[in-house]
Amino acid sequence: MRELELLSHIYRSNPALPAGVTIPPGDDMGAVLLGGATVLVTVDQVADGVHFDLATTPIEKIARKAITRNLSDVAAMAAKPVGAVAAACLPKGFGEDKAKTLFDAMHATAEQFNCPLIGGDISMWDQRLILTVTIFAEPDGIDPVLRSGAQVGDVIYVTGKLGASLITTDDPPGYTHHLDFTPRIALARKLAVNSAIRPHAMIDLSDGLALDLPRICEQSNVCAELDTNNLPISHAAHLAAQRSGQPAWQHAMGDGEDYELCFTAPPGSPSIMPAEIDGVPITQIGTIVAQHPGPVVTVRLPDGTLADTASLGWEHKG
Amino acid sequence: MRELELLSHIYRSNPALPAGVTIPPGDDMGAVLLGGATVLVTVDQVADGVHFDLATTPIEKIARKAITRNLSDVAAMAAKPVGAVAAACLPKGFGEDKAKTLFDAMHATAEQFNCPLIGGDISMWDQRLILTVTIFAEPDGIDPVLRSGAQVGDVIYVTGKLGASLITTDDPPGYTHHLDFTPRIALARKLAVNSAIRPHAMIDLSDGLALDLPRICEQSNVCAELDTNNLPISHAAHLAAQRSGQPAWQHAMGDGEDYELCFTAPPGSPSIMPAEIDGVPITQIGTIVAQHPGPVVTVRLPDGTLADTASLGWEHKG
Repeated sequence: MRELELLSHIYRSNPALPAGVTIPPGDDMGAVLLGGATVLVTVDQVADGVHFDLATTPIEKIARKAITRNLSDVAAMAAKPVGAVAAACLPKGFGEDKAKTLFDAMHATAEQFNCPLIGGDISMWDQRLILTVTIFAEPDGIDPVLRSGAQVGDVIYVTGKLGASLITTDDPPGYTHHLDFTPRIALARKLAVNSAIRPHAMIDLSDGLALDLPRICEQSNVCAELDTNNLPISHAAHLAAQRSGQPAWQHAMGDGEDYELCFTAPPGSPSIMPAEIDGVPITQIGTIVAQHPGPVVTVRLPDGTLADTASLGWEHKG
Repeated sequence: MRELELLSHIYRSNPALPAGVTIPPGDDMGAVLLGGATVLVTVDQVADGVHFDLATTPIEKIARKAITRNLSDVAAMAAKPVGAVAAACLPKGFGEDKAKTLFDAMHATAEQFNCPLIGGDISMWDQRLILTVTIFAEPDGIDPVLRSGAQVGDVIYVTGKLGASLITTDDPPGYTHHLDFTPRIALARKLAVNSAIRPHAMIDLSDGLALDLPRICEQSNVCAELDTNNLPISHAAHLAAQRSGQPAWQHAMGDGEDYELCFTAPPGSPSIMPAEIDGVPITQIGTIVAQHPGPVVTVRLPDGTLADTASLGWEHKG
């Protein structure tokens, strides 16, 4: 069962959302009006055995990821973080020292991104560690970028480099992308504040480009064409390809947990889109086309033949 | 390790909270300024085996409690709910039907209290069910009531009746307070909007009066005196006393999960405090006294002798 199926269910079961809900469930963040202000909200959980391995991962990095995963959703809306609350369910015997380390590190990460922790809830149980973080954000002068705004003719871009985010590389030493990534908040706001290159639609890559790009397409009622030769492939994805025997582009498209941004911008944008922002490369990877009965995302393979994400094994289910 | 010890740790470790944080961690909700508006936020989790028993509790009631537990925190601030996000970590094999039932019931409960669910996160794992709900609220014309405002001479009140909230009673049939309680939002706002009886300090009773009242005292730098003869004792607590052989007042003071409100109001308030609001009794149970080196809460027992909550076995740890 995919997360979005259930989120869609929540949405579908709620056709009469109050007028104050300005962004309904199904985007990277929801939004409501509160005292005349727009409040954007996102929640994410990280669980031992699912999103990290407590036995092999430093507590500080687990805590960091619990915060940054959410901040990546904030980036996807081009919003500005305001505050966070964190809930932790600790395994019995976890110990007060480790709990303090955990909260100190969540606090430090939150502060680094100007997103103070203002509350929390701690429980203990005989099950594994799970952390749930809710972050709220504000537009602060920049209209949120939704998933639903992609237009035919738009150029598709991604930030950074993709693939094999679980692999520890030597660049820099010990770097493991899914734990150490920087949420692209500042970059997203630089894009979105500039009317010439402001994204029409944006999403953060958590499940992988092959699953996340179709979400932009479905919510925008468009299709997409990608060229695998254009994908920015991470050093880790090249390492992974050597080990797995799969082509590196497959790791870049499918591995997930990149926490980079995928966005679309107008047809004229390539001539003015910076090659990088704050040292992060911006790469043109494809084009938005009109909705058609064929595959949602058509992929040009390195040999020039065409395929689609579903036939390549990435089954998008909403 | 008690929740508040860790929350205090978060707070202590964060002496330089940004100016926008108007209510720091440690109250029933935190608050930040956002676009000129005050946003109050609370998070709570309910876990299988800790806060409910999945094997014996209808899914709808679990879902309801996940929402209402948070709404009780909203009531404690006399705030007005605005929206919620819910995260669920489902045991493998939980099944899509049950997941839909769960989210439908969370949605229905949230809507009942004008608090639409605007986002969520679903994961699956090989551990037990856990639900984490974050609710945000607004003052909407009523200043939030804090834990820290109690003054010497204040009268201490509680709403409803206390004790044995886990016991299923026949009044009404099948009623189990910890699952079926009504968060006292409307009542709290009626109190707080009326300057003659507006609480100086308020908290919701989640861990039990014996542990929650000392939190008001500590944050207000005062002590309290209670008379056990005045405690409003629930029908369930009388049943529990018959079974346990303990006096019913002990169940009322210590059992927890009452989700009623405990508040203090000025010395003149008894002559004007309504005996009930919306059918919920308001009972005077004690007095706030000056801080002194003795016990934080002194308790007059039914035989007239004095004791304190710590010596009675309720060890308050912050």
